[in-house]
Amino acid sequence: MDTRPIGIFDSGVGGLTVADKVFRLLPNENIIYFGDTARVPYGNKSKEAVTRFSKEIVKFLSGFKVKLIIVACNTASSLSLEALKKEFSIPIIGVIKPGVEEALKTSKTGRIGVIGTERTISSNVYKKEIESTGRNSFIIQESCPLFVPLVENGWLSGDITLEIVRRNLAPLLARDIDTLILGCTHYPLLKKAIQRIAGKNVALIDSSIATAKYTKRLLDNKNLFADALAKAGKRGMGYAKFFVSDDTGNFIRLANIFLRRNIKAKKVVF
Amino acid sequence: MDTRPIGIFDSGVGGLTVADKVFRLLPNENIIYFGDTARVPYGNKSKEAVTRFSKEIVKFLSGFKVKLIIVACNTASSLSLEALKKEFSIPIIGVIKPGVEEALKTSKTGRIGVIGTERTISSNVYKKEIESTGRNSFIIQESCPLFVPLVENGWLSGDITLEIVRRNLAPLLARDIDTLILGCTHYPLLKKAIQRIAGKNVALIDSSIATAKYTKRLLDNKNLFADALAKAGKRGMGYAKFFVSDDTGNFIRLANIFLRRNIKAKKVVF
Repeated sequence: MDTRPIGIFDSGVGGLTVADKVFRLLPNENIIYFGDTARVPYGNKSKEAVTRFSKEIVKFLSGFKVKLIIVACNTASSLSLEALKKEFSIPIIGVIKPGVEEALKTSKTGRIGVIGTERTISSNVYKKEIESTGRNSFIIQESCPLFVPLVENGWLSGDITLEIVRRNLAPLLARDIDTLILGCTHYPLLKKAIQRIAGKNVALIDSSIATAKYTKRLLDNKNLFADALAKAGKRGMGYAKFFVSDDTGNFIRLANIFLRRNIKAKKVVF
Repeated sequence: MDTRPIGIFDSGVGGLTVADKVFRLLPNENIIYFGDTARVPYGNKSKEAVTRFSKEIVKFLSGFKVKLIIVACNTASSLSLEALKKEFSIPIIGVIKPGVEEALKTSKTGRIGVIGTERTISSNVYKKEIESTGRNSFIIQESCPLFVPLVENGWLSGDITLEIVRRNLAPLLARDIDTLILGCTHYPLLKKAIQRIAGKNVALIDSSIATAKYTKRLLDNKNLFADALAKAGKRGMGYAKFFVSDDTGNFIRLANIFLRRNIKAKKVVF
């Protein structure tokens, strides 16, 4: 049993979809969340820049003696996870592998679509991860650069949003996918619009749920649960502390949308 | 006569609309351009963060012994220009005042619309600047949070872009404006779409042109032209050097759209 907190970070608010699922599945765990709101978004930035930012954040979270870090950002997971694992001895997990496992369990035809930011898609990380399993599959990818701005501005439905979703999904739907990986932590907020355009025959993979499950398994394997209640999944008393690199107002407003509850947050500059 | 370069900076590529007009109007001037591509965009970030970033950039540009700095970003001009002027002795100009002067010259009815990023609009800087002139006017403002992502992704026309423009301009057009200030350096790239929706009776104010003219007047007044040819406006031999805080690929690709020519750029981290 280990009461040290779990660190979770993202470029901004997107990782709250992951934090939300961790709260629900592991309600006794303590969470330190960091959103890099002064430098958001990561999705169009270089591997070098995203890795530099991620290392700074891991150092910050390490100050809280975290027992595990979740890189709750597909772009940072795609570009920087290996470098982080190499530099830090603390266990660090990303959102790619859990999402891929879930997609492979779900897909019947092996025809899997992946949507994500420009950098996540061009890194081919999902394609490589799926192909490394040896599973017979056909992967088709598409970057959706306007999805993050839509979510960050609260345009979750309506004609414009549907039309943008339609345009981005068209090449994937034309290739008869049966499973679609939402390869960006913002995208679950657009789930309704995406499902409407994709139709009910396409299963959407929300890697936040898969990542929370993966985290639970990992804590179990390493005997790192905060207490016995956590393992049993009972409603617990874990705390959550939120830190951001820019002012807190906008973050708190968006956290309301993501977590459906009010939070406090603190600004830190490093 | 003063051959020291002019420094121009922006959160990213948007300020190239200003640089482009400076090249054309002052072809003998030497230019050092800095785009903060590792931290772009500024439009949704706090005054404190944008001011901190701007100060770092002014320090960087000062290393080139610039004779003048143009804050070619509406958000940074809105939030940080006063703080920069207070801290640095070098002449620093923003894009707000030139845009306002142009708008007041253009408008017949005094009914002026302003569009910009969330932070520029909520700062009310355009409204205050216009009202400080004492001119009888009616100002209506609207933030257009999706315009920058549209431009950065090259979606300059098409149904989706027109529909987004239509939605953002509707409240302004309903109030019978005769002049519309494009209060963000990205927006001139959407000029065709904006003019189409606004109709030919609304004059669009592109502050990049106004800022280049303002710069020329300032250099003239202070006797700071690079050489006599510059004053005469003849095609000259000024150099332009481009620096960015993230990798250069995406910047160079976008610079092609903004400047309609190929450039080289160098990455610097500070």
